[in-house]
Amino acid sequence: MEHLSKSQALEILKNLIAIKSVNDHEKTVATYLQKLLAQYDIKSEIKPIRGDRANLIAEIGQGKPVLGISGHMDVVSPGKLEDWNSNPFEMTEKDGMLYGRGITDMKSGLAAIVITMINLHAQDLPKKGTIRLMATMGEEVGEEGSSYFLKDGSMKDVDGLVIAEPSGYNIGYAEKGSMDIKFISKGKASHSSMPENGYNAIDALMNLLIEANTTFRDDQIKGDSIGPLVFNTTLIKGGTQVNSIPDYAEAEANVRTIPEYDNQKVIATLHNLIKKYNDQGAQISTDIYMNEGPVLMSPKNPLITPTKKLMEKYTTETVHVAPISAVTDASNLVQNKPIEFPFIVAGPGNNTPHQINENLDKQMYFNFIDIYEKLFIDFLEK
Amino acid sequence: MEHLSKSQALEILKNLIAIKSVNDHEKTVATYLQKLLAQYDIKSEIKPIRGDRANLIAEIGQGKPVLGISGHMDVVSPGKLEDWNSNPFEMTEKDGMLYGRGITDMKSGLAAIVITMINLHAQDLPKKGTIRLMATMGEEVGEEGSSYFLKDGSMKDVDGLVIAEPSGYNIGYAEKGSMDIKFISKGKASHSSMPENGYNAIDALMNLLIEANTTFRDDQIKGDSIGPLVFNTTLIKGGTQVNSIPDYAEAEANVRTIPEYDNQKVIATLHNLIKKYNDQGAQISTDIYMNEGPVLMSPKNPLITPTKKLMEKYTTETVHVAPISAVTDASNLVQNKPIEFPFIVAGPGNNTPHQINENLDKQMYFNFIDIYEKLFIDFLEK
Repeated sequence: MEHLSKSQALEILKNLIAIKSVNDHEKTVATYLQKLLAQYDIKSEIKPIRGDRANLIAEIGQGKPVLGISGHMDVVSPGKLEDWNSNPFEMTEKDGMLYGRGITDMKSGLAAIVITMINLHAQDLPKKGTIRLMATMGEEVGEEGSSYFLKDGSMKDVDGLVIAEPSGYNIGYAEKGSMDIKFISKGKASHSSMPENGYNAIDALMNLLIEANTTFRDDQIKGDSIGPLVFNTTLIKGGTQVNSIPDYAEAEANVRTIPEYDNQKVIATLHNLIKKYNDQGAQISTDIYMNEGPVLMSPKNPLITPTKKLMEKYTTETVHVAPISAVTDASNLVQNKPIEFPFIVAGPGNNTPHQINENLDKQMYFNFIDIYEKLFIDFLEK
Repeated sequence: MEHLSKSQALEILKNLIAIKSVNDHEKTVATYLQKLLAQYDIKSEIKPIRGDRANLIAEIGQGKPVLGISGHMDVVSPGKLEDWNSNPFEMTEKDGMLYGRGITDMKSGLAAIVITMINLHAQDLPKKGTIRLMATMGEEVGEEGSSYFLKDGSMKDVDGLVIAEPSGYNIGYAEKGSMDIKFISKGKASHSSMPENGYNAIDALMNLLIEANTTFRDDQIKGDSIGPLVFNTTLIKGGTQVNSIPDYAEAEANVRTIPEYDNQKVIATLHNLIKKYNDQGAQISTDIYMNEGPVLMSPKNPLITPTKKLMEKYTTETVHVAPISAVTDASNLVQNKPIEFPFIVAGPGNNTPHQINENLDKQMYFNFIDIYEKLFIDFLEK
C-alpha cells in the first residue's frame, strides 16, 4: 500500500463526523486518530487536558527542518437538528457534496493531513526532516488547545506551519484577532406597571450594544491589511418574568480585531462607551475572557508560491492569497515567529462553517490530500 | 342572626387562605363559598371552566338596579416558603396584622363581599334591586375568568360594579390596559468572523426594541387621564454560542396602555416598526398573548362620593380617588359601559400583594364589611 483509497479516505472522514466533538470529546477523536495512525505504524501521544478533552501530537521523519501541520478536533453546535436536511453527525453524500457538522470546519482538513502523513510514511517519506502533527482541542472556544502546544515548546523548533482550516483553493497568511467579551448589566426590579421604581437592565445593555455596533461599524475604521474590524453581539439573556422590570441582563460579543484597530483600542473604546451609560445610571461591567491578537505574516513567505501552484492544478478560478477572516490556532502557534516565517492557512472547505447543512465538495477533499503530499515534501526536501 | 361575628368572619378568611388556589383550584374555593352561602339560604352557581377551575355567581334581592360585586379566587405563587415568617397557607395573626398568601390580594376582599351578602340577606335586604356576586378564576394570569362573565352576558344588566381588589382607604376608578407581547427574530447563522454570510437576529431585535422605547416613551404620548403609556422589554434571550452569528432571538415586553394610546394603536405602531426592519432584511414576528384594554370611568361616577364618605369614617388620612396601576377584572367586566358607569375598585389591603409575608390590618377587614353593607344598600335604594 502506498496510498489510502478514496473509499478509505471517506470512511475516515465519516468516522470523524460521527464523533460528536461539540466543544468537548476531543479525546475520543484523538483516540480514534491514535489507533488509525498506529495501524500504519505511526506513533502518537495523547496530551490530556481534562475530562474527555485532549490534544494529539504525532511525527514522521526525523531531524530538521520541521514542518508543523495542525487542525482542530472540536466542532460547533449543530443548532436545531430539525433544520438540517440530514443527521449532522452522519456524513451524507448528495450530488458530489458531503454534508455533516464539521465537514468543512474542519474534520475534512484534519482527516486530509492525517491521511497525508499515513501516505507519506508508507512511502518512507520524508527522506529529510520531520512532519509534526498538532491536533488541537477547544479551538472553537478560545483556541485553548494550541495554547498548550505554545507553552510546552512544541512550536519552538518548527520551521514552517500549515493550518488545515477551510480556505478552499485560496491561501491565508494573516488573520484577525478575536475577543470574546461578556457584558453584565445590573438594574433594579419593580412591577412592570411601576417602572419608575426600578431600573431596566435589559434596556441599558441594549443601548450600549447598539451604540457599540454603530461605533465599530464606522467606515472610518479602515482595514487595509486584513479587512474591517468586526463586532457582533452573539448571546443575550435577561429578565425573570414578563411583568417585572428586569434587574439583570448579560450579553456576549465577539470582536475580530485588525492591526489598525487592535484589541487594546477596542477595550479603550468600550470602556468609554460603558462609562457614558454608567454615568447615566447603568451598572454595566465587562469580562474579556478571550483575547487573541491579530496575526500578520508576509504574503511572500516561502510556503505561499508552492501552494498556489499546486492549487492552480485543481481550479480554474483565481487562487487568492489573502488574510482570512477567521481566527485559528495560529494566534497561539506563530507567536514570536518573525514576519517571514513560512505560514499558510490552507485546507478543504467552503463558506458553510458553523451553518446548517454544512457541506464540502467531495473532490476537493481528495484534491487536498494530493496537494498536501506534494507541498509537505517540497517544503522539507527542497 | 343579623350579622356574622368577627370570629366567624376570621374563620371564613382563614378557610379561604388554606385553599392553595395558586393559578388553579378556584373550583375548590367556589365549592367552599357555595356551601357557605347555602348555609345562609343563598343560592349560587358554579360555572366550570376546566379541571379544578371555575367561576362562581350568586345573587340576593331582585329586579333593578343590579349592583355587580366581584373578586378573584386565585392567588399568585408564594415564592420560596422559607422566606416567609409563617406558613403562607395558614392565616397567622400577629400584633393586629393577618398574614398569608392572598390576605391582601384578595381573599379578604372576596370574603368581605360574600359576608356582606350573607349579612344583608339575613336582614332581608336589599329591599330594592339585586346584588350579583361574580367570583372569578384566573385573574392573575390574563383575567381569564372575567372574560367568561363578559361573554355569557352576566354584566349586561349590571348598573354598577364594585371590584374588591386591595385599595385600602382609597378608591380606583380607572386602570391602564396591559399587553404581553412576545417578539421572535429569525436570522441566519454564520461564523462570527463572516457576519456577511449570516444575519444577526439579536441585532435586529435590539434595534426594534430600542426604537420602540424611543417611540413609546415620547413625551408627545400624553397621558392626562391615567398617566403615561409604559413600554418595557422584560425578557430577552438569543444566540447559541459566542462565535456564531445568532439565527434566533426572542424577547417579551409588557405594555401598559392608556385611553389616549390604546392597545390597537400600540399594535399598529409596532407593526409599522417591524415592517421597517423586516423590509431591511429582518424576520421579526409578534405574538400578543395578553391583551387587556385600559379602563377609564369618570372620577365623578355615582359610586365615588358615597364610598369616600364611608371610608373617611375609618381613616384620618386623605382618601385618594385615583387611577390604579394594576390591571383587574374590570378590563373585561366594564367593556362597552359608558364613562359615567358607576364603578370603583375598593377593597381591604395594602401594598404587599404578590410579596413575601403578604399582610393586612385585621381591623381594616372588619371595616370593609361595614363599608360594603352601607355602600351596597345606599347604591340600590337611593
